[in-house]
Amino acid sequence: MFANVTEPGVVVPMAAALAIGLGALGPGIGIGLAVKGAMEAIGRNPEAEGAVRLTMIIGAALAEAVAIYAFVVAVIIAFVL
Amino acid sequence: MFANVTEPGVVVPMAAALAIGLGALGPGIGIGLAVKGAMEAIGRNPEAEGAVRLTMIIGAALAEAVAIYAFVVAVIIAFVL
Amino acid sequence: MFANVTEPGVVVPMAAALAIGLGALGPGIGIGLAVKGAMEAIGRNPEAEGAVRLTMIIGAALAEAVAIYAFVVAVIIAFVL
Amino acid sequence: MFANVTEPGVVVPMAAALAIGLGALGPGIGIGLAVKGAMEAIGRNPEAEGAVRLTMIIGAALAEAVAIYAFVVAVIIAFVL
Amino acid sequence: MFANVTEPGVVVPMAAALAIGLGALGPGIGIGLAVKGAMEAIGRNPEAEGAVRLTMIIGAALAEAVAIYAFVVAVIIAFVL
Repeated sequence: MFANVTEPGVVVPMAAALAIGLGALGPGIGIGLAVKGAMEAIGRNPEAEGAVRLTMIIGAALAEAVAIYAFVVAVIIAFVL
Repeated sequence: MFANVTEPGVVVPMAAALAIGLGALGPGIGIGLAVKGAMEAIGRNPEAEGAVRLTMIIGAALAEAVAIYAFVVAVIIAFVL
Repeated sequence: MFANVTEPGVVVPMAAALAIGLGALGPGIGIGLAVKGAMEAIGRNPEAEGAVRLTMIIGAALAEAVAIYAFVVAVIIAFVL
Repeated sequence: MFANVTEPGVVVPMAAALAIGLGALGPGIGIGLAVKGAMEAIGRNPEAEGAVRLTMIIGAALAEAVAIYAFVVAVIIAFVL
Repeated sequence: MFANVTEPGVVVPMAAALAIGLGALGPGIGIGLAVKGAMEAIGRNPEAEGAVRLTMIIGAALAEAVAIYAFVVAVIIAFVL
């Protein structure tokens, strides 16, 4: 894919792209699964709305953190390496 | 794919493309899962429409944020690298 | 992919990207599955909210740890190698 | 992928990345499945909370160990090879 | 993948990485499935807790052994080859 690459400057943009590109795949799907579960829970039992929403936000924040790790590494690649 | 690439300017457009392209895959699917769950919930229980809609928007915004990380990295690649 | 690469500096950004990019895929989806289960449990049985939330956080933290391993390796690759 | 590579220092970062990147995929998803099952069990039968939580932690620790093997190999690759 | 590689030191890190990286994928997911089944069984029938937990540990240990084989091979590659 990169033949005769000798300059780090050539690889850095592609590396930053793969870090956030691949790193966003899992959390993006995972948060969707979490919210889907929340929707079904509220549809089945609307009185549980508050409990569902709070727990969903806590859980989705944990998945969001995974995406933030990837974002941090992408920024490190872009500006430090 | 990139034979004899020696100029960063050749890689930057492709890198920006992969950043947002891969980065949009997961959140795109995830938001779809979230909305699908919301549809099923409202279909099952129309009185829960308001609760479902509010929670869906909160949850989808969390997945949307993952796509925004990819967008930010793509813009960094395009204009800074 | 990297032909005639002779400088570690060329590989390091790509390696850091793959470490966190691939490493975030599994935990991101896994945390989503965990939260989805929690949502369904609270929807079915709102009185179990406290038990579900505590157990969900313990379990998601175990999956989060997997992502943190990948993040640590990515940082080691970026700053030590 | 690496043609005409003559320096181990070029391969080591990529190898450490693949070790933890691929190695985190399975345990990340697996722990999520385990926690999802625990959530459904507590939702169905909240009195089983203690039994479910203890067994979930034992099981997730076994999957966590798999990720730790990958982390150990990644660190060996990074610092010993 | 490695054309014109003439030094074993170049291949060894990548080989160890692929050994544990690919080798951890299956057991990680498999243990998760095993624990998920155990959770559902305890939720449905809490009196079976002891039997379920013991059998889960035996079963997960068998999957864990698969990951340990990969770990042993990765260590052999790293330190013996």
